[in-house]
Amino acid sequence: MARPEIAKLGHVALVSSDLEKSLWFFKEVIGLEETEARDGVHYLRAWGDFQHHTLSLEAGDGGQVRHIGWRTKRPEDVQAFRELLEQDGVEVETVKAGTTPGIGEAIRFPLPSGHQFELYYDVEKPKADEHRRSVLKNQTYKAWAKGVSPRRFDHVNIHTDTDAALTYDFLREQLGFKMREYVRDDDGNVLAGWMSVTSLVHDLAFIQKPSLPSPARLHHISYWSDDSQDILRAADILKENGLRFIGPGKHGISQALYLYVMDPGSGCRVELFTGGYLIFEPDWEPVEWTLAERDLGNTYWGDTVSDKEDNNVTIMA
Amino acid sequence: MARPEIAKLGHVALVSSDLEKSLWFFKEVIGLEETEARDGVHYLRAWGDFQHHTLSLEAGDGGQVRHIGWRTKRPEDVQAFRELLEQDGVEVETVKAGTTPGIGEAIRFPLPSGHQFELYYDVEKPKADEHRRSVLKNQTYKAWAKGVSPRRFDHVNIHTDTDAALTYDFLREQLGFKMREYVRDDDGNVLAGWMSVTSLVHDLAFIQKPSLPSPARLHHISYWSDDSQDILRAADILKENGLRFIGPGKHGISQALYLYVMDPGSGCRVELFTGGYLIFEPDWEPVEWTLAERDLGNTYWGDTVSDKEDNNVTIMA
Amino acid sequence: MARPEIAKLGHVALVSSDLEKSLWFFKEVIGLEETEARDGVHYLRAWGDFQHHTLSLEAGDGGQVRHIGWRTKRPEDVQAFRELLEQDGVEVETVKAGTTPGIGEAIRFPLPSGHQFELYYDVEKPKADEHRRSVLKNQTYKAWAKGVSPRRFDHVNIHTDTDAALTYDFLREQLGFKMREYVRDDDGNVLAGWMSVTSLVHDLAFIQKPSLPSPARLHHISYWSDDSQDILRAADILKENGLRFIGPGKHGISQALYLYVMDPGSGCRVELFTGGYLIFEPDWEPVEWTLAERDLGNTYWGDTVSDKEDNNVTIMA
Amino acid sequence: MARPEIAKLGHVALVSSDLEKSLWFFKEVIGLEETEARDGVHYLRAWGDFQHHTLSLEAGDGGQVRHIGWRTKRPEDVQAFRELLEQDGVEVETVKAGTTPGIGEAIRFPLPSGHQFELYYDVEKPKADEHRRSVLKNQTYKAWAKGVSPRRFDHVNIHTDTDAALTYDFLREQLGFKMREYVRDDDGNVLAGWMSVTSLVHDLAFIQKPSLPSPARLHHISYWSDDSQDILRAADILKENGLRFIGPGKHGISQALYLYVMDPGSGCRVELFTGGYLIFEPDWEPVEWTLAERDLGNTYWGDTVSDKEDNNVTIMA
Repeated sequence: MARPEIAKLGHVALVSSDLEKSLWFFKEVIGLEETEARDGVHYLRAWGDFQHHTLSLEAGDGGQVRHIGWRTKRPEDVQAFRELLEQDGVEVETVKAGTTPGIGEAIRFPLPSGHQFELYYDVEKPKADEHRRSVLKNQTYKAWAKGVSPRRFDHVNIHTDTDAALTYDFLREQLGFKMREYVRDDDGNVLAGWMSVTSLVHDLAFIQKPSLPSPARLHHISYWSDDSQDILRAADILKENGLRFIGPGKHGISQALYLYVMDPGSGCRVELFTGGYLIFEPDWEPVEWTLAERDLGNTYWGDTVSDKEDNNVTIMA
Repeated sequence: MARPEIAKLGHVALVSSDLEKSLWFFKEVIGLEETEARDGVHYLRAWGDFQHHTLSLEAGDGGQVRHIGWRTKRPEDVQAFRELLEQDGVEVETVKAGTTPGIGEAIRFPLPSGHQFELYYDVEKPKADEHRRSVLKNQTYKAWAKGVSPRRFDHVNIHTDTDAALTYDFLREQLGFKMREYVRDDDGNVLAGWMSVTSLVHDLAFIQKPSLPSPARLHHISYWSDDSQDILRAADILKENGLRFIGPGKHGISQALYLYVMDPGSGCRVELFTGGYLIFEPDWEPVEWTLAERDLGNTYWGDTVSDKEDNNVTIMA
Repeated sequence: MARPEIAKLGHVALVSSDLEKSLWFFKEVIGLEETEARDGVHYLRAWGDFQHHTLSLEAGDGGQVRHIGWRTKRPEDVQAFRELLEQDGVEVETVKAGTTPGIGEAIRFPLPSGHQFELYYDVEKPKADEHRRSVLKNQTYKAWAKGVSPRRFDHVNIHTDTDAALTYDFLREQLGFKMREYVRDDDGNVLAGWMSVTSLVHDLAFIQKPSLPSPARLHHISYWSDDSQDILRAADILKENGLRFIGPGKHGISQALYLYVMDPGSGCRVELFTGGYLIFEPDWEPVEWTLAERDLGNTYWGDTVSDKEDNNVTIMA
Repeated sequence: MARPEIAKLGHVALVSSDLEKSLWFFKEVIGLEETEARDGVHYLRAWGDFQHHTLSLEAGDGGQVRHIGWRTKRPEDVQAFRELLEQDGVEVETVKAGTTPGIGEAIRFPLPSGHQFELYYDVEKPKADEHRRSVLKNQTYKAWAKGVSPRRFDHVNIHTDTDAALTYDFLREQLGFKMREYVRDDDGNVLAGWMSVTSLVHDLAFIQKPSLPSPARLHHISYWSDDSQDILRAADILKENGLRFIGPGKHGISQALYLYVMDPGSGCRVELFTGGYLIFEPDWEPVEWTLAERDLGNTYWGDTVSDKEDNNVTIMA
């Protein structure tokens, strides 16, 4: 049997201590569309997302992420992953189809770092309501209806203060993530890795920090826009809505043009970005950045992502 | 053994009846970089291309394309493809490593439509000369050195006046291309298909025409830029260099923002474009456009790609 | 006494046969803000306009323009213009302050071509409501609240089928417009002139046509955006709202990047544009375009403004 | 006789301690065109500048600015200004026509702050060489030939550590500059003023500093680009050329999107920018920013212009 594979990042399940504010932020400011709201949970996606939702929002104590969902390549991969993980001593939970609207049977399990992942194959790809639907058959919603209006969900960035090496191995060997770029210290330890199962430079960034407000942190989720100008327009929109943010700037690593802004409801940081490159070479050699090169890797130019505002506390349950 | 797979589009080998003019066009106007010139053949790539070259240019009678090269996913895929193709009665030619600078052992064979394809795994990914090299470790050349300066080679668009169905089957079944979007007539025949082996909507567009100047035509090759503004800047550059072009416009199919301009040396058309979307869904259902929807599919808005200037005669040997 | 001078274009008073549709078009699609509605007239302006309104909309029979308003440089210029005009035999009407909300005492008179002009000095520059107000002290509204969201009113383009020479002389000699660019036929007659009282290439384009649906036509009004990308985003927005338009394209004359779209309520055409250049040279020599050069003057590149859709019938009363 | 008036900013005469490096910076990186070089002085302008040159560069000890040149509205204004200034006790020097290539008879005099101004009316507006000339009749050079390629010279920013009030009065009363925006301290003293004779928010910014490396400093000269994307492209170009810079960011005051980079030869800082707004209202009330509002005025968003790199020492002789 073929090794099971992850096809793509699916969604993030977010809990907000101020749901009203989070809904305002994600729907009016960022401009996500709501597929549906059920049992107090709001299911959102960008105008170019196909899957039922790429972000769910519900009320709860403290900003937290329940899990990060990924879609497998084949239906049978979900069970195949379960077997592989259980063989490896990982505790795997089953989630019945329909537990989450739009998502079929799933498994959930923690990374060695404690971050909760969910894997599933079946997803609904509902059409948009007619008045919000694009005239294009290959686009879910009309673009530019409100707010920043990014095209699609792109990646997640998670932090650990445990030994990252275990988790890098797990991501690579159990889950099939390929390392695309990384920062290593002078002893050869990987401190930050940008990994993907797709042609994107990263679907997942995994970064080791000396200490964190919570052992397993979601640093940010990221939505992708088509044009640099969209990011500058986003800066105007965020500023006029009274939101503080970092950027614009351009990373050396991944070559992404970015803004970082925090959801005032959940404390979850959102990266609005464009640019970057795609990796189609099958023998991609991970790009290594030494500590001496890390500054250029972090910031090709622009407003720096420093530790100055690095205070979001989105823990993972 | 796993089915052999194609990883990505590699390069196009172009013959120009006016090499001087083609070099001016591709190097100064489009802004491609020259990796090397050997035995009268010039090997070019964009600043973000990693492979040795994505376009080769040599002098010869009439504009023609020798072959379209593709890189396989694994080293053993080249021989595996040979076996599969020969089992199917396709005549396969072997090309020894190094015949083309930067490219390892390859096989060549015609599609049912007559277009010549080349498959190989081994490629060199030479660094740029120091003074042209980017300060970024993940980028080959400094961007914006000259001309339009697109980031990377993207796709090819080829035309046939034979029965396209045979070739669609061949592309899908022998070579593993997935259909992403297509136009069909009222009898259900596919007239145009956008196909890919990557997350791009198309690495290859294959289009049936009632009649053509040559049985197998390369309609255009395409280089990708990051931003819409790059395409508008390209329009200024082309105009100031005395080149006629079609666009800017935006396709419905693939959602690409485009310009089409012809190399005055070879007659090969080049699409400069950005935008579009990526397909990560493993169960992507090809988007169908009927004849009635074809106009929207061709032109979401802007200057239309009509038959008015559809006169390039880039044949395939 | 100093010669009276016009400082800037002020506003256009538009009558729509389908006010509901016009309000949807200008407020939701174009994204203008409403300063106030009084006595059935809606007063609109762009987010960066300072004056009370730059467009008024009211219901009436047939699309028509009541008048085009201009602001003088000094308070006393209004009366000085009246005297000059009356000396010249022009019939001048007085409009009492407050007849139009936000606008002080004005005079109205026809150009030789029949187009009705209004001149005034006093205008209100009301602040925006607090929730729509920009955080910037030099900007009226938050930008990007809805629709295309252009920055400011820019110019008007009017057509005549009478002898244009009389009107050019009038605009130049009575009103102080400077010719910036023009098209002339082989006999030296000016067929189209781009004229301004500001540093813009044109506040007013005046164009002679062989025949028109009404003797004095407003061809289009124009709102200005900051970035090329704004125009491409506008194209998406117009298309998704079911509106047909011409462009994007770039004029040679004025170097403007444009879209042309018609208000479905009034039939008034709106140009959305950016780019262009500013004229600060005090001895600017008007740029002459011969008939042979007119095509390049009309279209540097892109989708052409042809006569194909040149069917709007916005007459001037 | 009418009061003499300044029409526009003309040019800056810069002395570089490393002319070679300055020429590389301004010609290859910024992408200015050279009209001519004579007697060791290089005369440069942007592709959209009409005047003979907007920057002159010559070798000399230390980075310095000889003078800032302005063009008057009428030929007779030069002598009228001389009379006004001399009546006011200002020492005025006459410069014979042709002393500076392309510039007619001029007068030179110091501001109260010591900055040397030059006024002239006559300028040559030479066409570009044929191979560099735009196909457009209203544009001097082909755009995008090399480097950042801004459209035109825009403004100068000068600093003083003397009592600024004297100079503000002089600029307003003697030279006719209008205050557009300003920062004042809690005692009502103007600390920074953005002033213009055109519709730009500023042709001249004049800023008081507690202490300076030289009594009269040129802080920066500024070239304008059409699009936001041009500024981001400029950031890539500067970075790849090994140049440090501040930005991208957006000022609240003037609403300009900016980069600041220093010529490594002369130490003269150059602002590359776009955006901003135009002032056509004849009764513009200067926008006042208090000390409490200064941060927003300086930085609407983005990488801040702090004092951290505020070390250029371009003195005025």
